Amino acid sequence: MRAPATAPFTVPPDNGQRVPVRSALVQPLDGLIRRLLKSVFGRSPLSFVLADGSVLLESAVPPVATVVIRDRRTILRLLLDPDMAMGEAYSDGAAQVEGDLVAALEAAYAAVGARSAWYWQLAPTARHTVRLSFRNARRHYDLGNDFYRLWLDEQLVYTCAYFPSPQAGLEEAQLAKMELLCRKLRLRPGEEVVEVGCGWGALALYMARHYGVKVRAYNVSHEQICHARKRARNEGLTGRVEFFESDYRDAQGPADVFVSIGMLEHVGRENYPALGAVIDRCLPRGRGRGLLHFIGRDRPRPLSAWIRRRIFPGAYAPTLSEVFSGALEPARLSVVDVENLRLHYARTLARWRERYEAAYDEVAARFGARFARTWRFYLAGSEAGFRSGSLQLFQVSFARTGDNDLGWTRADLYRETAPGHGRL
Amino acid sequence: MRAPATAPFTVPPDNGQRVPVRSALVQPLDGLIRRLLKSVFGRSPLSFVLADGSVLLESAVPPVATVVIRDRRTILRLLLDPDMAMGEAYSDGAAQVEGDLVAALEAAYAAVGARSAWYWQLAPTARHTVRLSFRNARRHYDLGNDFYRLWLDEQLVYTCAYFPSPQAGLEEAQLAKMELLCRKLRLRPGEEVVEVGCGWGALALYMARHYGVKVRAYNVSHEQICHARKRARNEGLTGRVEFFESDYRDAQGPADVFVSIGMLEHVGRENYPALGAVIDRCLPRGRGRGLLHFIGRDRPRPLSAWIRRRIFPGAYAPTLSEVFSGALEPARLSVVDVENLRLHYARTLARWRERYEAAYDEVAARFGARFARTWRFYLAGSEAGFRSGSLQLFQVSFARTGDNDLGWTRADLYRETAPGHGRL
Repeated sequence: MRAPATAPFTVPPDNGQRVPVRSALVQPLDGLIRRLLKSVFGRSPLSFVLADGSVLLESAVPPVATVVIRDRRTILRLLLDPDMAMGEAYSDGAAQVEGDLVAALEAAYAAVGARSAWYWQLAPTARHTVRLSFRNARRHYDLGNDFYRLWLDEQLVYTCAYFPSPQAGLEEAQLAKMELLCRKLRLRPGEEVVEVGCGWGALALYMARHYGVKVRAYNVSHEQICHARKRARNEGLTGRVEFFESDYRDAQGPADVFVSIGMLEHVGRENYPALGAVIDRCLPRGRGRGLLHFIGRDRPRPLSAWIRRRIFPGAYAPTLSEVFSGALEPARLSVVDVENLRLHYARTLARWRERYEAAYDEVAARFGARFARTWRFYLAGSEAGFRSGSLQLFQVSFARTGDNDLGWTRADLYRETAPGHGRL
Repeated sequence: MRAPATAPFTVPPDNGQRVPVRSALVQPLDGLIRRLLKSVFGRSPLSFVLADGSVLLESAVPPVATVVIRDRRTILRLLLDPDMAMGEAYSDGAAQVEGDLVAALEAAYAAVGARSAWYWQLAPTARHTVRLSFRNARRHYDLGNDFYRLWLDEQLVYTCAYFPSPQAGLEEAQLAKMELLCRKLRLRPGEEVVEVGCGWGALALYMARHYGVKVRAYNVSHEQICHARKRARNEGLTGRVEFFESDYRDAQGPADVFVSIGMLEHVGRENYPALGAVIDRCLPRGRGRGLLHFIGRDRPRPLSAWIRRRIFPGAYAPTLSEVFSGALEPARLSVVDVENLRLHYARTLARWRERYEAAYDEVAARFGARFARTWRFYLAGSEAGFRSGSLQLFQVSFARTGDNDLGWTRADLYRETAPGHGRL
């Protein structure tokens, strides 16, 4: 996929002489490129130039960024398959962005998304066997805890934070998120909690420490589970939190509470009934509650092909109705509360990216320049997705149908005093 | 449908003599009835007796009520088609309940619902033309404002209230509900609001008075619209609230905000895309917000046949996924917040029923004994439905996909000071 370093628009000499075809082919081609760019990006705050300095499109409005493209092959790819090619070209260095990367991507997605539906090809159905789940998770989450330590918060929470105020710092916001979750779950001392997809274990340990519950936590990432077990030992919580290197389908009840933060994206649409059955099996008959926190969509659409290829193999961000009809309705569960926190995820990604940029040279030195650019593009593109509303972040609180042990109002979520943390 | 006053188990004489078949038919029949009753209600806190005093089923647990049934024909109907026959028998006086009516119905629904699915026949698809919508609404809402004044709050709010504490009174809780809605809608002075299905106009007037917005409110009930217009005149709000005797499909934008409280139940599943299109048309492109408040279900299922026949012709209580996929997703709307207030509706119905019982003799004198019993059964049965989780009450806040003018957190919904009302 790597574009050649030289411009492709020369033909090999057949008489010992290099014949420039520029005059014959390039000028009409450039005209076509300019027209196509204008038809897609004509109203966007983006300018496009070639690396040789020739201007392809001058933004009609004050530009947020200039896209510098190495060669015409790259720009043709961008026009033919922007979904895939934007990420590839950025990772390869074949396209660079001078200016605000997030704003540029927000503008690009808006222009491409508004333009036509054929850009969004139907995603091939990804399979999600237990074995593939392990492989997919290892590919992403086992990149090494040291890598994530460079730019996540100190507790390594790799999901949307909750910023009590927009100015809050990342550490504070991840603590507030865990506190918000505990309050939404209305945890009581001595209760049993099943958590599937527990990451590095921060929430499981928080629930046990601050709310006195017992937690069985599941995760298929070896590196994450090792880290979580070590933390439990260091913090004297091994008696109250058990970590299993295991798929969500292995989760065992009985539990009073079921919680999953940022895992549903990896479950796959075809497995929502299986997830519902796991929840149904873990909770008692006619009783119990839980929460699903996941990246979603307003309308059914696959994730970007590039994200699926390079970042999250097999991932899918569902609509609420896909999750409700697929997982919750058949499992006799009732939706109690939904909160959309997409702007909090945009803020979280901005905080991650600040740290990532500060560690950029170290990432590039250890993982290579392409990897460093790929992850920058992923973080910036995700932020753009949440800002533009292409991506949503849903927290769905549920209870067994007919269980009347519900909070009377939500006012107590926002009360001053709480076991863990201050006001939300 | 009215059951005959005499017992049916006699055959006409063919030789001039009445031949009692009691000994030949009734005793085996009573055995069958007892076995069937036991198989359905054997674990319920209900006893069943015939009006002649013979015991059909003695509750194994301390009973919440005794069901007194006039004759065997009624009990056979109850066993064959409880969904329809319970309401009919109660209205006719063919079945009476001694004890706690709500608890009895909760127990009966639980027993019948748990037993088998064949009780819930698929509802015939009801049509919802504009003309039928007018007829259906008039049948229910035009019973006369004086009737509703007997048992609703002083502002005639005929939808689920919001009780800041379980002890709050009905007047306070209906005010708190309107305040909660205004806060969820984040109304700002000068904004334009479209309200469809505005009842007697209480919310429209509240929004205009306390939040300084302009409201266009639609309703097909003639009596309600007349009352609402009179209130607007009396309160000097005619310049800010306009009431239209018109179907939701006639609603016109542009508006900043779209709100509908307790109308979706009458729209019909097949019209959710039409409702979505109305919202889409009323809100500006890429901007705007709104709220739908409606009775829903955890799983798709028609309302009780009796409710559809006697109380709400054409009504349907949808699941969230039916509303999201049918109305919101196609209209480029994003779910921001969902709150399930089913226990608040149970409380609201309990408050209504207290007042209704206090006015019972007056209702019976003016509308007849059958009508009075019908409405008692409807209020008690609805309360049982919300308590048991067979019915839900959803408030769904939405915004245009990509509109970032969202509340940062929900904490401000629960702040102390507000234009209208105290803390929620």
